Amino acid sequence: MSFTPALNETLARQAIELPSWAFGNAGTRFKVFSTPGTPRTIQEKLADAAQVNRLTGLAPSVALHIPWDLVDDYGALAAYAQDLGVRLGTVNSNTFQDDDYKLGSLTHVDPRIRRKAIDHHFACIDVMDATGSRDLKIWLPDGTNYPGQGDIRGRQDRLADSLQQIYARLGEHQRLVLEYKIFEPYFYTMDVPDWGTSYAHVTALGERAMVCLDTGHHAPSTNIEFIVAQLLRLGRLGSFDFNSRFYADDDLIVGAADPFQLFRIIAEVVRGGGLEAGSPVAFMLDQCHNIEDKIPGQIRSVLNVQEMTARALLIDQAALRAAQDAGDVLGANAIYMDAFYTDVRPALADWREDRGLPRDPVAAYAASGYAERIAADRVGGTQAGWGA
Amino acid sequence: MSFTPALNETLARQAIELPSWAFGNAGTRFKVFSTPGTPRTIQEKLADAAQVNRLTGLAPSVALHIPWDLVDDYGALAAYAQDLGVRLGTVNSNTFQDDDYKLGSLTHVDPRIRRKAIDHHFACIDVMDATGSRDLKIWLPDGTNYPGQGDIRGRQDRLADSLQQIYARLGEHQRLVLEYKIFEPYFYTMDVPDWGTSYAHVTALGERAMVCLDTGHHAPSTNIEFIVAQLLRLGRLGSFDFNSRFYADDDLIVGAADPFQLFRIIAEVVRGGGLEAGSPVAFMLDQCHNIEDKIPGQIRSVLNVQEMTARALLIDQAALRAAQDAGDVLGANAIYMDAFYTDVRPALADWREDRGLPRDPVAAYAASGYAERIAADRVGGTQAGWGA
Amino acid sequence: MSFTPALNETLARQAIELPSWAFGNAGTRFKVFSTPGTPRTIQEKLADAAQVNRLTGLAPSVALHIPWDLVDDYGALAAYAQDLGVRLGTVNSNTFQDDDYKLGSLTHVDPRIRRKAIDHHFACIDVMDATGSRDLKIWLPDGTNYPGQGDIRGRQDRLADSLQQIYARLGEHQRLVLEYKIFEPYFYTMDVPDWGTSYAHVTALGERAMVCLDTGHHAPSTNIEFIVAQLLRLGRLGSFDFNSRFYADDDLIVGAADPFQLFRIIAEVVRGGGLEAGSPVAFMLDQCHNIEDKIPGQIRSVLNVQEMTARALLIDQAALRAAQDAGDVLGANAIYMDAFYTDVRPALADWREDRGLPRDPVAAYAASGYAERIAADRVGGTQAGWGA
Amino acid sequence: MSFTPALNETLARQAIELPSWAFGNAGTRFKVFSTPGTPRTIQEKLADAAQVNRLTGLAPSVALHIPWDLVDDYGALAAYAQDLGVRLGTVNSNTFQDDDYKLGSLTHVDPRIRRKAIDHHFACIDVMDATGSRDLKIWLPDGTNYPGQGDIRGRQDRLADSLQQIYARLGEHQRLVLEYKIFEPYFYTMDVPDWGTSYAHVTALGERAMVCLDTGHHAPSTNIEFIVAQLLRLGRLGSFDFNSRFYADDDLIVGAADPFQLFRIIAEVVRGGGLEAGSPVAFMLDQCHNIEDKIPGQIRSVLNVQEMTARALLIDQAALRAAQDAGDVLGANAIYMDAFYTDVRPALADWREDRGLPRDPVAAYAASGYAERIAADRVGGTQAGWGA
Repeated sequence: MSFTPALNETLARQAIELPSWAFGNAGTRFKVFSTPGTPRTIQEKLADAAQVNRLTGLAPSVALHIPWDLVDDYGALAAYAQDLGVRLGTVNSNTFQDDDYKLGSLTHVDPRIRRKAIDHHFACIDVMDATGSRDLKIWLPDGTNYPGQGDIRGRQDRLADSLQQIYARLGEHQRLVLEYKIFEPYFYTMDVPDWGTSYAHVTALGERAMVCLDTGHHAPSTNIEFIVAQLLRLGRLGSFDFNSRFYADDDLIVGAADPFQLFRIIAEVVRGGGLEAGSPVAFMLDQCHNIEDKIPGQIRSVLNVQEMTARALLIDQAALRAAQDAGDVLGANAIYMDAFYTDVRPALADWREDRGLPRDPVAAYAASGYAERIAADRVGGTQAGWGA
Repeated sequence: MSFTPALNETLARQAIELPSWAFGNAGTRFKVFSTPGTPRTIQEKLADAAQVNRLTGLAPSVALHIPWDLVDDYGALAAYAQDLGVRLGTVNSNTFQDDDYKLGSLTHVDPRIRRKAIDHHFACIDVMDATGSRDLKIWLPDGTNYPGQGDIRGRQDRLADSLQQIYARLGEHQRLVLEYKIFEPYFYTMDVPDWGTSYAHVTALGERAMVCLDTGHHAPSTNIEFIVAQLLRLGRLGSFDFNSRFYADDDLIVGAADPFQLFRIIAEVVRGGGLEAGSPVAFMLDQCHNIEDKIPGQIRSVLNVQEMTARALLIDQAALRAAQDAGDVLGANAIYMDAFYTDVRPALADWREDRGLPRDPVAAYAASGYAERIAADRVGGTQAGWGA
Repeated sequence: MSFTPALNETLARQAIELPSWAFGNAGTRFKVFSTPGTPRTIQEKLADAAQVNRLTGLAPSVALHIPWDLVDDYGALAAYAQDLGVRLGTVNSNTFQDDDYKLGSLTHVDPRIRRKAIDHHFACIDVMDATGSRDLKIWLPDGTNYPGQGDIRGRQDRLADSLQQIYARLGEHQRLVLEYKIFEPYFYTMDVPDWGTSYAHVTALGERAMVCLDTGHHAPSTNIEFIVAQLLRLGRLGSFDFNSRFYADDDLIVGAADPFQLFRIIAEVVRGGGLEAGSPVAFMLDQCHNIEDKIPGQIRSVLNVQEMTARALLIDQAALRAAQDAGDVLGANAIYMDAFYTDVRPALADWREDRGLPRDPVAAYAASGYAERIAADRVGGTQAGWGA
Repeated sequence: MSFTPALNETLARQAIELPSWAFGNAGTRFKVFSTPGTPRTIQEKLADAAQVNRLTGLAPSVALHIPWDLVDDYGALAAYAQDLGVRLGTVNSNTFQDDDYKLGSLTHVDPRIRRKAIDHHFACIDVMDATGSRDLKIWLPDGTNYPGQGDIRGRQDRLADSLQQIYARLGEHQRLVLEYKIFEPYFYTMDVPDWGTSYAHVTALGERAMVCLDTGHHAPSTNIEFIVAQLLRLGRLGSFDFNSRFYADDDLIVGAADPFQLFRIIAEVVRGGGLEAGSPVAFMLDQCHNIEDKIPGQIRSVLNVQEMTARALLIDQAALRAAQDAGDVLGANAIYMDAFYTDVRPALADWREDRGLPRDPVAAYAASGYAERIAADRVGGTQAGWGA
């Protein structure tokens, strides 16, 4: 099997943003295991991310997390990234690690704390101005743990006001992307628990406000590809945070838990035009590598997205539509599954070779000696992590 | 404990619509058990519903299901209901039992079948015109069982068009209420699976389109009271279908599975003004009585809603707000729980006695001999059921 | 890619029992759609099942459901099956459709009804004696809908006694296989809800009592392959009921919802010796074809099991063990995934051709004219179904 | 309402063990918030726990967590506790925070690490010998994150061997209590994920091996009271870890999320004899107080257990049995619910007053000045926490 020129073109356009924090240590509330070579600085994170891009050609940009990735000079950081062959991408705000935010940030009942949280987002926009980033991504960690603890309605109203202030501060080429999550770090309510809430807020804000869909942030048995299709239809799918899960927000390697779900999601992206030139949909990873090596974990992840994209692009759309229109349940399903079961890996190895990339990026990374080098070099200092 | 006048006034306003189909036989795909005395006609269903209202004062109206409750003369039926002390309420459409709808109704790819489904809703509006019903409730049973079987996006587009046609046909005092459900009778996609989808459609339709929230139609661990609060805030909560569940759409007696959840839901209704005079929120039951007696099952259900309403109205809102504003997590929760744990049953018995109702409606029903009478009278004919 | 002789040998041994009821109509509590050509008798069901076997070589036996498949002369039925190239397999008891069983069967508090349920199983054993079937499969539909309705503990004790009586009646070459299910048709408790309960009962019975694992009968997010591994380790995995699900007991075509889960399950079967000669594990389907054609649905199902078996057999066990022993998380996972992503379909087509089977059984069925023939022939009578 | 002497006697026997770690800081992977006054030492934890017991009379013992609560002299620690009016209880092992245990402990493929984990349990037994503790509680945090990463079966076999060695080391009055958990800290498999696995292991060990049921460790929609009833029936319910959850292992205050579930659980404990004198069932809390005050959080928790116990003891068992035996579904449920809806709080305040305890322990704690005192006193040092 070889790919058509159109398929190759789509693959060539594919870009998957890496999260800077994926290269730091991560874990559970029980334990964060550390590994030799883990970055101490954003510069070292960028260097690691650049390895992923160098070997796969798929990851040209890196998302920042403020304040984890605070530096004095973002212009210099952007230049540093450029030298490594990557660029700075989405700016992620963080309102979950300051003691003030224990009971909320953009929703907090105390005007002082809410002001502080809004100002933090203004600071993030300042970073975006310096880096040229398009997207401000807000994953709002606010919520409550006990019934009665907070006023659900009042928190929504304050959230709407806070978002309005932040949105008003954006430049005209910048976007606000609002992520939702069903639970964690709070266990009774989250203030943006589902796509409906995110959608209601972003439509109230304006055209440059979009929804971010993290594949691990739903209730069990939620049909995620339906949400993808719906948000694309409504013109509000701004970005993906890819990862995978068996239970909760497990943040495993994308495609690791349910490859067929990833296929279905990307099939809806294709169907809704999300891979076409000029699509507003940004693709990112948001994962933890609690026990596996981080750089190969990211390599595996972007390859998984690419492989599943190739499979989704192989769906015989004309035949599928014909079977759907004929009410041929088994026939339509068979056409769909045929694409999923096709082994695209050899053709993708060819695709890489054609572009001067290693046929097997995982093996190439192992052979590169990079892991040994950073383990030897990065001694002392404090390894990056979530700082919980 | 006795109730304040304001609380009494709210209780006096409370009305819970009964579903005509609750008096017919229901069951699972494995078995529908029948019981002596089960109604054969809509008239007999109305008579049973009237018993519930006579003993509780809580259930002044009865929802119809078309075509299950088709009659030739709805004016006569309305008069019949009036003689029994109840009135005809919401009209529910049904597009799940005609062979044509195997692969969809309002979303069907075949224009003929989609036309038929739209026309069915026109017929329902005709019934509404005859009965004076305000609400057309659409629970859309459409969906697919296998990935690839249908085009998710195309089905949404056709749905939007179908709803537009139906909405346009409504009279100016009539409303369209769109229910959502995560799964069943289809097991891969449902075309209106979540509140976000329902909300997106009803906002596209216009001001008289609202969302119906069935408490059993969510993914496991969904925070339903959050959705209640959000829809009230957005002005789109049209009605409730009350029931309860441990697993899926179990359709058990409301309050039977998780009484505290029912409390939390009604607390948000109170918070959002849903029990105030002129509120747009309609309260209905939608349950099955697979193994328990149907009329006492309905009596138990409306009493459960009333009891939980009384508890929710007992929340000391000023103290709660003060604790919330002070960040007193345990204190706020304690105020909330105090209302839940208060035993309102004696005060409600008093409330009923004051209104000439039996203190114990369940016992009064048992003593009435009604069950024995209908068992003796309703011999022959075909007992009402879902006709699956 | 071609298969090794050992792999071919395992594939040659594979046999997947078909459920007679899969050829009858099935549906949800909302609607059972019928199709032309649906069998009216067990003989016609056997004829349909024989088509599946003729085209795939995978389905040499057919499970019976008593009383749905009651006949006067099981010897004659067995001969009839043999003429069709299949044999009669597992006998499934049914205690969910008699009015007496509304509140329980083997657990019922009324000795008369419990006696009746036990006697029904004796009758099933009589059928087994006549057919030469090895397995009596008990899916116990007993449970309760409301807290307090039944005494959970007392029901267990009665169940243990009932099972003891049934087990004592078995011949020495017969087995009792006890299935578990988390919910449905009851919605608060099921009397055998999980593998632990089934395991506790079968170990109390004796060595010829085993657990049946239906892949659709678990709570959301349950790791089913872990249970498979554990039951194999404990020597108590008697049989599988294969199907698939997105939400509840959806009973979709096996492998349709989560192909990777099916792979993981079969990988544990392989690991635990379940595909070796003399293995006690029986493989069966238990599915509904609510909207798709039944015979091709069964063909698709057995092919899915076979394809996934081939993939599982391709796991490089030595390399996997080495990676596991080395603590190479990503390496071990990659070896595992490599087998899953391998496209075994061409090699399986060769495998079929070598055995005189059609390369594409689905296409062969479509070309055979069988569907048209039965649609024309089977006119009149009552189509088989669940009789709910 | 007042309690019968028998009920009072059962209440007087009730003892709920507190976890030492509940008084330290806890949080999520995102953030651990600290509070003034948090203990730095096990002695300070004991002092806090003693406050709970002093005000409620319900919490006479404190569970230790090794190595968090390591001291040089356990005899001295036991005496210290005794002076505070409490005693040292269950010893909990911890194999999740040593770097060696990244890929397993009692199941580890490396004999050295497995030996180390077994030896850790021997050290725990040494502590038990010194403190006179009866129970060694093993929550095994082992598991894997990726399919193929580990050999599920091999891990079980190693676990069985490890447990055998530990069990053999126990004194004749000591017990091994094996906890299960569906997920976290691993996200694909856990090596003891469900009660069935725990049950299979403890029955293989011997009579002094029991199952520990943590109420937050199940799949969504699991019927926990069924497991309680079953384990009591099988004689293997050793202990409870009480807490509550909306989503995952939220570790919220017991009774906070689903009070009716707590009622149902305790009702099964009562039914199965778990509150009788000499019962083998130990009651403990295992909670986190991420955002609420810790000591009042524990006070609230033991009161919740006591209140629900009182309600469960109020079930009219004779009437319930009669209704169950009569097949009166609604009647039996009503008897059950009547107990749940009874407001036992005034009678429990009387009960406390009769025993010289404050009528309102929460208010008494607030008035005691203890919180202010420890906040002022406990300055410097390192606050206790999980040390993730």
